[in-house]
This record gives sequence, C-alpha cells and structure tokens, in this order.
Amino acid sequence: MEKVLNPKSAVVIGASKTPNKVGNVILRNLIERKMKTLYAVNPKYQEVLGIKCFPSVKKLPKKVDCAIIATPAATVPKIVKECGEKGIKGVIIITSGFEEVGNHKGAQEIKRYAKKYGLQIIGPNCLGVLNMHGKIDTIFLPSHKLERPKEGAISFLSQSGAVGSVIIDMLAHYGIGVAKFISYGNATATDESDLLEYLGKDKESEVIVLYVEGVKDGRRFYNALKKAARTKKIIVLKGGKEKGGQKAAKSHTGNIAGSYTAYQAAFKQSKVIEVEDIEELFDILKLIEKPLPKGERVGVITNGGGLGIMTADEVEKQGLKLAEFEERTKKELKKILPPYGRVGNPLDLVADADVFAYERALAAISKDRNTDMLAVITLLQTPKMDDRIVGVLTKTIAQINKPLVVISLGGEYTEAYIKIFERSGVPTYTSPKSAIKALKKLREFAKRKEKKRR
Amino acid sequence: MEKVLNPKSAVVIGASKTPNKVGNVILRNLIERKMKTLYAVNPKYQEVLGIKCFPSVKKLPKKVDCAIIATPAATVPKIVKECGEKGIKGVIIITSGFEEVGNHKGAQEIKRYAKKYGLQIIGPNCLGVLNMHGKIDTIFLPSHKLERPKEGAISFLSQSGAVGSVIIDMLAHYGIGVAKFISYGNATATDESDLLEYLGKDKESEVIVLYVEGVKDGRRFYNALKKAARTKKIIVLKGGKEKGGQKAAKSHTGNIAGSYTAYQAAFKQSKVIEVEDIEELFDILKLIEKPLPKGERVGVITNGGGLGIMTADEVEKQGLKLAEFEERTKKELKKILPPYGRVGNPLDLVADADVFAYERALAAISKDRNTDMLAVITLLQTPKMDDRIVGVLTKTIAQINKPLVVISLGGEYTEAYIKIFERSGVPTYTSPKSAIKALKKLREFAKRKEKKRR
Repeated sequence: MEKVLNPKSAVVIGASKTPNKVGNVILRNLIERKMKTLYAVNPKYQEVLGIKCFPSVKKLPKKVDCAIIATPAATVPKIVKECGEKGIKGVIIITSGFEEVGNHKGAQEIKRYAKKYGLQIIGPNCLGVLNMHGKIDTIFLPSHKLERPKEGAISFLSQSGAVGSVIIDMLAHYGIGVAKFISYGNATATDESDLLEYLGKDKESEVIVLYVEGVKDGRRFYNALKKAARTKKIIVLKGGKEKGGQKAAKSHTGNIAGSYTAYQAAFKQSKVIEVEDIEELFDILKLIEKPLPKGERVGVITNGGGLGIMTADEVEKQGLKLAEFEERTKKELKKILPPYGRVGNPLDLVADADVFAYERALAAISKDRNTDMLAVITLLQTPKMDDRIVGVLTKTIAQINKPLVVISLGGEYTEAYIKIFERSGVPTYTSPKSAIKALKKLREFAKRKEKKRR
Repeated sequence: MEKVLNPKSAVVIGASKTPNKVGNVILRNLIERKMKTLYAVNPKYQEVLGIKCFPSVKKLPKKVDCAIIATPAATVPKIVKECGEKGIKGVIIITSGFEEVGNHKGAQEIKRYAKKYGLQIIGPNCLGVLNMHGKIDTIFLPSHKLERPKEGAISFLSQSGAVGSVIIDMLAHYGIGVAKFISYGNATATDESDLLEYLGKDKESEVIVLYVEGVKDGRRFYNALKKAARTKKIIVLKGGKEKGGQKAAKSHTGNIAGSYTAYQAAFKQSKVIEVEDIEELFDILKLIEKPLPKGERVGVITNGGGLGIMTADEVEKQGLKLAEFEERTKKELKKILPPYGRVGNPLDLVADADVFAYERALAAISKDRNTDMLAVITLLQTPKMDDRIVGVLTKTIAQINKPLVVISLGGEYTEAYIKIFERSGVPTYTSPKSAIKALKKLREFAKRKEKKRR
C-alpha cells in the first residue's frame, strides 16, 4: 500500500496541457508537492507543465512507484497491464465507466491484471488519494475551490468522490488535521476491508472516518472494522439507507447497499461511532481527539438565560443529566454572581458577565466532581465580552480532563469569533442540539469502550 | 400599542454618558434612527450625546409617546407612576430584578399604575422593541456586535432577551427582512396574548415568530394564537420543555413553563409551525415566504452521486416521496446527460456538469407535474461550476410555484457562495437533513391549512 500512499516516484497517464482537466490538475498537484521522480504519459506531447512526457508506459525510462490513470475507460485495462509489465506496483484509476454503468468486462480485466502482477489498485471511478504527510495528492478539483487540510491524525476512506471532496474541504475549513485520504470508488481490486486493515496498523492515523454505501463482503468488512476499532477510533457514515438511496447507490459505484439494519448492528457490535450525516460527523470530529466523558452529568454555563434553558432542555431530551454541583463549587460560584444571581445549573452569569466571570466559573466547574462534561454558552453580543474569552477557553480545554463544548450563535461578528474558536481547537457549535448530541454520542461510545475493558 | 412600536417622540430615563451602558446605547440608537422629539432624564446631566437632559420625568417640557426606563429596579415603580401622571402612554422597562428574583411587590406596583393610567408597558427584564419600519430601537447591544436586519415582513416576539438578540443578529446575517421585534421579558402588564392580538392585525407583519417559555393564561394564549394564525403564518419555538429547563425558566422571567404536552397540542390545533430549536427556525424562515408544497413528491438534482444518495435517504426517512418524473420530463433530461448517464431521481448530472446542465434540468423538473418540491445539490468545488449558477437559481425560484431548496457544503470557497445565495433569496442549506426536514415541516403545515379550507 506504501506504493500508492507514499510513492517516491510517479507517472500521470493521460497528462494534459488543458487547465482544469483531470490529467492537468493531478500533474500540477504532484509538482507542487515536490514528488521527486515524476513523468507524464500522453502520445500528443513531449512535455507537460515542464515534466517530460512519453507516448506510453512501456517507453518510460524506468519503473516508478505509482501510476495515476486518467484516460478514457476503454484504454484503461491495457494500460494497467502495461504498468504490471513495467513493474509499477501502485496504480490509481481515476477514470469512471466500469461497474457503475454495467461495464463488468473492463472491471474483470483490471482485477485479473491486479492479481497477475501483484498490483495495488485504487479505484476506478474515484478521486484517488491524498497523504498529508507525504508527496501524493490526486484530488483533481482546483485548490482555490477546495482547500487542503493541515497535517493531523485523522484518516478518511470514502466510497464517493463527491462526499470525499466535500469532507476534505470542510476538514480544512474547520482546521482539523488529516493524515491520509483515500477515495476508493468502485473498490474493484482494493476494497474497504483492505483499506481498514491497512489504516488499522498505520501509525499516523489515530482516527478513521469511513463513508460507505455498499461493501464487497459483509463478513470480511465486519471483521476488519472490529479489528481496526481495537486500536483506532472509528466514525462511520452510511449512504444508501433507504430504498431510493440504495437504488441510486447501485448506479453510483456499482455496489449493492444492502440492508441498513444489518449495517447498524455491525457498527454497534464493532464499537465504532455511527453518525447520521455530514453535520453530525463534524460535530463529533471536533471532540474526537479530546477526553471522553466518564459519566452522564453536564454542567451548563451561560450569559443568556433563554439559551441556558434550551441547552438544559436538550441535555434531558438526549438522556443526559444536569449536574448537581458540589457544595464547594456552589460556594465558589456564589462569589462570581451579582447579588440577585442564583447558583443553578444552567449557571446564568447574566448578560453583564465579563471574561473573568467565565474564567472563575470555568475553573470552579472544571474541578467539580459531580460534573462529567461542560457546555459553555458564550453570547458574544453582550457589551462586556471581549476577545480574551479565546484565551480563557483554550487554557481551560488544555487543563481539564473532561470534554467541553462551546455554544455560540449570531451574525457576522459572532461568526468571525467562531472561526477563531475553531482554529484554536475549541469545539464550537451553533446550536445547543448539535453540541449536546455530540456529547451524548461520545458518552455512548465511551460506555461501549468501558465494557470492553472489563 | 402604536405609542410603543411607532412613537413620534420619546424619552430615555436613565440616560448615560458612559459608552456601552444601556442608557447610552439606547439614546444613541434613537438619535441614529432620527427620532423627531427626543429627551433624556438623569439628574446628573444637563445633556447626553447632545440631547437635552432633565432631572425627572415631571420636569419634561411636554409629554412624549414613549418612555424607555433603564434605571435601578427600586426606582422603576415611581418612575412609571410619573410617566402616567405626565400622560406618557407607552412605557418600555429594560431594568431587571422583578418577578424573576421574587420581587413581586415591584411588579404589582407596575401593574397597578398600568391599569390606573392606561399605560402600554413592555417588560420589565427585556430588550425592548425594534421597529424596522419606524424610528424605535431599544436593543442595547452594540451594533458592531449585533447586526440589525433589513426591513421586511417577519415580526418576532421573544420572552428571552438573549434568544431575541441572537435571532435578530442571525436574521440580519441571513438577509431576512424584519417588521417588528418585541422582547417582552416578564410580561408584567402586556403579555404574549396581547402582543399576538396586535400583530395578528398588523399590516406590516406577514409572519410571526414567537419564542416563549411560559405564558400568563393558557386558555387566552391558545385563543390568541388560533386567531392570529388565521391571518398570519406563525412559527413557535418553546423553551423550558424538560424539567431542568422549566426550573431554569422560572428564575429567568418568573413565568411557569408548564406541561410541554399541553403546549404541543395547542400548537398543533392552532395551525402554527412548531420548531425544535433556533437552527430549525432558520431552516423554516428561509422558505416561509415561498410557495407551500402541494404534495409529498421531491425531485432531487445533484452533481455529486454520494450527496444525491444521502438526500434521497433523507427524503424517505422524513416520510416524503422521491418523485417519479413524467415521461416528457425524462426525455428532456436524457438530452442533458452524458451518454453513460441515467435519468433517475436523484438526477445525477455528474461532477462534469456545468451551469447550463443545471439550467436545463431545473427548467424540465420545474414543469414536471409529478414533482411537488425540488432539492438542488450544488457542489461548487467541481471545475465547471461558476458564478452563473446564482442567476440560474434566482431565475428559477422567481418563476416556479413550488418550494426549492439548495444544498451546498464545503470550505471557504463554498461558504462565500452560500452567503451570496442567501443574500439573493435562495434558500440554502448545508446538509441534506436540514433542507429536507424544512420541506417536510412546510408540507405538514400546508396540509393543516388545506384541511381548514375545506
């Protein structure tokens, strides 16, 4: 798999001089990422973007680690064969037009060559791979339209290229670091189970995110998932849950989505986190590298009464509990509040609260032994709030051993702050529901993990 | 009520020279909105912000339409009395420290004077009012932190000041136009039912949004809601649904939140839309001034297979149906797709689609008689998408008689577009779930309305 995910040399087959064409964007990516040995193949050119171009794979001066194929579907099997003959072991096929449109003959040929020559093939019908710690990036969407994330510990497998690209774009936007991304499309020769097995052992990956519509072999998939979940935190998003979606899935990557109930059971038993949709995926991702909650009890801090109430409602609706603070904590909190204020949970610091009130309240509740997690509402519109709140929050998060979520909502001003919060590693949510649901999901996950340990 | 919501003259009692203080911000607001006759009251000053300042209400040269009180709680009842004696009929009490902290004596006095002098009192413990078509704005949060919305047809009643201010800020941010905003706090002399009655007859208000924790008189509230719902579209958000939230609500505005089940039944019977939270409120607000869906059948257009699948899943999960396009429509669509493309629903225009493919697909499905609503996924990351998509969407929305939602998600680039979409009146969602849930809610609302007509 290293040949595909960490190649030292590569060739782009179907390299193009036309801007925005797949064979142009990918070659440009590899130049920008400083791939050491790089060739192009296209009988029309002698060079593309300053890279030497050859009429065919056979004519390459030496073998390379990885070939990226972006030529018409009809030409692909023959090119795969040539790669095998040349001794190129890693192959990424971007081209679509195989299983998903009923071209099973083409797919079978690819499979046969993979076996014959011992090739590691990703695709076809995919975006390819991105290794933030390496030199490879075959995402053919313009980088001004689609940001690349920073280096990190989250790896991501996606059956769908579109879902993959959107999530990569959002990971960058939220400042979440990525290790490896693999868009595996039709999974013709390398499937989700192979990839899970690989990532389960990958040192750079601590969290694995998986978007899957249908799998090749259910039993194998379940076992691969269960095994990988022993060493990594895994988050799964399933596409094609209902009838109409399943029908669409079949014509998408040629895989049968299968009964959702079976998948759900497999996800539960293999101790992974299943998310409902992309929004929930990010709600969880923001917290996944933080401490897991050790109990059900939530402490709520607010500077707006109504939002405290909504958050308290959500805590109970989600089946979590409002913490009953220790007497010691209550005494501490009493000192912070104005004379007419009452120590409750939610703790209402009222609209008049400044950053220091938050600092002291956070310090007290962080230590509270009756509180397992914190939900901190910061309405930034109030006159006395200022940017020192960022420091107070990051300091608290660095010190406490409980998950902490921040809930902040509003217009331009607040959104600018939310971005700063996110880039500073503060898990920020724009609604009580999304924040509390994320805490609930993590608590469920922690409980399943606890059982395992016994 | 005109004296409070549309005053031609006003006085700020407790006017202050200190920036960001309540009595300073409100006076500044009224100057900026060009309130014709404007006075200040504070024994310490002779003028504030260039406005003539008097030692007491009694000393004012003439009576005004509306007095805004921002002095300590202990002084408020006496000032209300003086307003009554002076012949000032509209009174807004910003000050807190009454029912919500057990000061029922102060509240009773205010109530007594309201009756005795025939005053229209808003508050205490509130943000006051904002009339986008008039001169009044008593929101005391700095305008650089909290945007003001543009003029429009949505009016908003909020028991909570914080929830009120956040929603106002978000309305501005999403480009949604507002008529009147009333933060009514403890509802001591003017309650939610009075305000609903007033807005039900208000020509500038077409939609009424209500955030309520607890009401004064359940029966009266139900009747007021039912009556107003005959002429206006009403959206309700309830705070204090669960036990912990209810307890918090009591110490918030001194009102008892009461059994949520009873509220739910009242909302259903009075034909209003109940939303779960602020997020869902905005999901609905984006569509509320568009045509209502006449049936259950959704047409889905996408340029990303996986997102089409997730949207199809959501359509079925929400109990809506995937439309089966008419033969005529299918023929039209076949012409747009590449040779290997299949006409399905979701209609996958594939990543290669340009703006013209969208234009033609939208034209065909807009006319389709088997489609009641449209969900259009636009992944803007693809090479051939460009800014002409904005024009295509706004043109389509202006012409069709069905609700249309756009689903777009991604990083910086996509977010910039989403903002343009929203400001152009395109209902845009960042997840299939929020978009389809909004369509479902509107369909339920339309069905209840249909029943009424029979």
